[in-house]
Amino acid sequence: MKSDIEIAQAAALKPILQVSSKLDLNSDDLIPYGQYIAKLSAACIQKLQTQADGQLILVTAISPTPAGEGKTTTTIGLADALNQVLADKNQHAMVCMREPSLGPVFGLKGGATGGGYSQVVPMEDINLHFTGDFHAISSANNLLAALIDNHIYQGNALDINPASITWRRCMDMNDRALRDITLNSRNKAGSFFDRQTGFDITVASEVMAIFCLATSLSDLQTRLGNIQIGLTSANKPVLASDLQAEGAMTALLKNAFQPNVVQTLEHTAALVHGGPFANIAHGCNSVAATKAALKLADFVVTEAGFGADLGAEKFIDIKCRKTGLQPAAVVLVATVRALKYHGGVDITSLNQENLTALKSGTANLKKHIENLQQHFGLKVVVAINHFLSDTEAEIALLSTVAASFGVKAIVCKHWANGGAGAIDLAHEVIRMTEQPTKSFKLLYPDEMPLLEKIETIAQKIYGASHVELSLEAQTALAKLEKNYSHYPVCIAKTQYSFSSDPTLRGAPTAHVLKVRQLRLSRGAEFIVAICGDIMTMPGLPKQPVSERIGVNQAGSIVGLN
Amino acid sequence: MKSDIEIAQAAALKPILQVSSKLDLNSDDLIPYGQYIAKLSAACIQKLQTQADGQLILVTAISPTPAGEGKTTTTIGLADALNQVLADKNQHAMVCMREPSLGPVFGLKGGATGGGYSQVVPMEDINLHFTGDFHAISSANNLLAALIDNHIYQGNALDINPASITWRRCMDMNDRALRDITLNSRNKAGSFFDRQTGFDITVASEVMAIFCLATSLSDLQTRLGNIQIGLTSANKPVLASDLQAEGAMTALLKNAFQPNVVQTLEHTAALVHGGPFANIAHGCNSVAATKAALKLADFVVTEAGFGADLGAEKFIDIKCRKTGLQPAAVVLVATVRALKYHGGVDITSLNQENLTALKSGTANLKKHIENLQQHFGLKVVVAINHFLSDTEAEIALLSTVAASFGVKAIVCKHWANGGAGAIDLAHEVIRMTEQPTKSFKLLYPDEMPLLEKIETIAQKIYGASHVELSLEAQTALAKLEKNYSHYPVCIAKTQYSFSSDPTLRGAPTAHVLKVRQLRLSRGAEFIVAICGDIMTMPGLPKQPVSERIGVNQAGSIVGLN
Repeated sequence: MKSDIEIAQAAALKPILQVSSKLDLNSDDLIPYGQYIAKLSAACIQKLQTQADGQLILVTAISPTPAGEGKTTTTIGLADALNQVLADKNQHAMVCMREPSLGPVFGLKGGATGGGYSQVVPMEDINLHFTGDFHAISSANNLLAALIDNHIYQGNALDINPASITWRRCMDMNDRALRDITLNSRNKAGSFFDRQTGFDITVASEVMAIFCLATSLSDLQTRLGNIQIGLTSANKPVLASDLQAEGAMTALLKNAFQPNVVQTLEHTAALVHGGPFANIAHGCNSVAATKAALKLADFVVTEAGFGADLGAEKFIDIKCRKTGLQPAAVVLVATVRALKYHGGVDITSLNQENLTALKSGTANLKKHIENLQQHFGLKVVVAINHFLSDTEAEIALLSTVAASFGVKAIVCKHWANGGAGAIDLAHEVIRMTEQPTKSFKLLYPDEMPLLEKIETIAQKIYGASHVELSLEAQTALAKLEKNYSHYPVCIAKTQYSFSSDPTLRGAPTAHVLKVRQLRLSRGAEFIVAICGDIMTMPGLPKQPVSERIGVNQAGSIVGLN
Repeated sequence: MKSDIEIAQAAALKPILQVSSKLDLNSDDLIPYGQYIAKLSAACIQKLQTQADGQLILVTAISPTPAGEGKTTTTIGLADALNQVLADKNQHAMVCMREPSLGPVFGLKGGATGGGYSQVVPMEDINLHFTGDFHAISSANNLLAALIDNHIYQGNALDINPASITWRRCMDMNDRALRDITLNSRNKAGSFFDRQTGFDITVASEVMAIFCLATSLSDLQTRLGNIQIGLTSANKPVLASDLQAEGAMTALLKNAFQPNVVQTLEHTAALVHGGPFANIAHGCNSVAATKAALKLADFVVTEAGFGADLGAEKFIDIKCRKTGLQPAAVVLVATVRALKYHGGVDITSLNQENLTALKSGTANLKKHIENLQQHFGLKVVVAINHFLSDTEAEIALLSTVAASFGVKAIVCKHWANGGAGAIDLAHEVIRMTEQPTKSFKLLYPDEMPLLEKIETIAQKIYGASHVELSLEAQTALAKLEKNYSHYPVCIAKTQYSFSSDPTLRGAPTAHVLKVRQLRLSRGAEFIVAICGDIMTMPGLPKQPVSERIGVNQAGSIVGLN
């Protein structure tokens, strides 16, 4: 069996200009980065404003398990399948997804560009640096950090309280040792003072969240200026704009802000742009890319991070709320293996048929379906991402159970067969978009108080009995309700369970959501509610994937997944 | 008077393909990054190997002063002038220079792409991110750092002594607060241990030096593997290859390793690639770029960092030694203002005519000329980079004095007039390359012991009476002489004086070069001798240039110099 990188490197790519010409893009619209990667120029995006929007298809998943679900491959495979189905209608589908982070590339995953015959390419370039967007985001984040410490060093005219500074530096790397650091600084007079701080991985930077929510360069600049970095000695907020940082930060992000165009193995155009964490941020690609894609294609297949409880909820309540975007249909990805895992099967026994466990595990699937249908008014289809170990009895059972939940479950084999493996799913998606629309709705209105928003998500989406706030969170809440009550909340909790306990599989009920901390993302315009320990700087494993990555004699990169 | 960025943005750039076509490059040879920037493909560089080499013209300068000398503008202006002179001969000149670092762009300088009518463009892109080379170098540097700390965390199978680790992290930013940091780490069992380390600016990373000295991707990988990061508990060297880091580091650098092609305001092609510090490293653009440029053009104008005592000496004794490169002529840049400063005039009085101070200051010029002629066997011409405050009497005096030193001094007005302002210099450079060659020589042979190498540089080039080593340096020397005696030495001292005291202007003699520390750059293959305090992570000034950098309503970047 070929590895992902072998499949990708064996593929005959088309020049990106040729791929894009199907979407009526020409060379003036694209800024090339080599022959197979381009950015969609700011001028082109401006020009597209008058076009009608296509249909937005959201791909999400059951609660993630170590068994793997395949959300990205399904996103890519579905778009390829749609293009096969739409070929004689002169309609087009495209992909809209997040950029990979270098951290996981060198750590465990070795890549984040799909897999098998559902990949975006050139995979080596997309996984390594790509067009430099994440580096630009790191630079903007770290320029602000340097300006803060320099301001204090140079006399601290703003009277920033060093202990109050919440702005951290970032790096696009899994570097555990940078989580907690002490800056051994001196002031200008030469006397020492220490400051505790640390690095987050770039995808966890508020600059990343802002980059992905901003609707224009000027909106980007305004939001960057609105970042709150800490407090004065008199507890007044200090903003990035107080340090005159937002202009240079925007200049650093200007080129990056233009969405990247690549192709799938079947030459479907894909916008791959931005990639915030799905815990302390909203976890989906940039608004700029999604909006541009809707102007360019009849169907845009996009994905949200983690499971539907986190990714889809935030996609809707944060991204759609601010931008007016509306998914026309939702694809909920599940695997027989992952559902058996949710049904209690050990990770080592997933290859054995187990109908009882599968049935039990569908509780997780059911809750996600209900959430999407009832709370968001969305049409849902289940994509069963096929594994060789799936038995016919298991597939049949899963289809029957899904039908009992009122949705179709369609077996997809795009990993092995590309778009041809997801034709049935494509037909169903098209059919769904032709049906009368359900009434799409947000989970809560802007004017609902923050605590009530958290409770609404916890009870309706997670199945929690109630919410408990730590003392710290209670104190923070009182302050935040005053000025930021109208912001949506972004819940940072484990992705592995509906609850905040990662070991509770299936669809736990009557659990308590414990909120440890509330954080203001003033530039991104949401409140982060942190439940449990949330890692914003991952570490490398004992045997990092990097050990096998290299360049061979022919000058090709090897060792990526 | 227009600012540099206003001149650059008003210029009508030609597509880089058109600029390159004069050098017989076609679209297959270039990897475009937008319309005006490209990389020279690895395949193209391979193809060029059979071509004959052009003439290499090295631009260097007197000891730098706050008055400014204009080495980069002279490099660019001379190449433009050469192309005007060579237009009817079907010969071509090109520029080969370093990439700007983001640190100085946001700090004091606001850009490093020349000035006035001698600039490389698009200046905003070159100054901000460019093609991402420095980010790739930062990533490679920091991946190695993450692998080191992860190795210790995961059990430290190599028995690395944490206190011995010399490998630091890096960032392309002026961030004083990161100079000295404590990693507040835990081991896997959860117990705390602290480790002192810090960040350097990316141009100070050994990866940058290696990147600029490597002759091929495989040489790059070998050198990266050879980096020594610290010692085991038994004092045995630990290399990057012991951590299996070099493959992934090379993969990160693969695209970056291809030289960047841009143009001057007069459409002269310029390779802008790499940029190591000129103190703890050798301070010139990549070997890959210089070698490619010599295949492409009849004349390649390149520059070395700082003054000729540091930059030109390292260009010859480190870069030329390893690669067989030989400058055909040297342009030594001086200004009347800077020479008056060397003659003792205060920075505030440089606009007043002062023939006595000028004459006295030429001692600095004389010593650089003698060094280049006598110790390296090079032909030298002085370029007087003209300022409006220069008087005719000053220019006349300087020409006379230069003649008494046996060289021509030619007034250049390329800053104001572009290539047309450096025509006389271009003619003289061509004339020099047509004269019989002097016998080019390195300052010392490989087999000379390290201490003697340091003494040779100190006495012959700097005019020192002798060298003194600290106890630490003596201990290090004894060890280094055993295995690395054949390496060249890279002296890290102030650029402002021939001595290690930055306040000693002119041409001080009988000073003592005090070597505080010796460091092994095992991948770069040189020994760094540190004299005095050398800053490897600069800080921002009280009013950083970043405060006025931004993006205007039209989407253009403003505020760069």
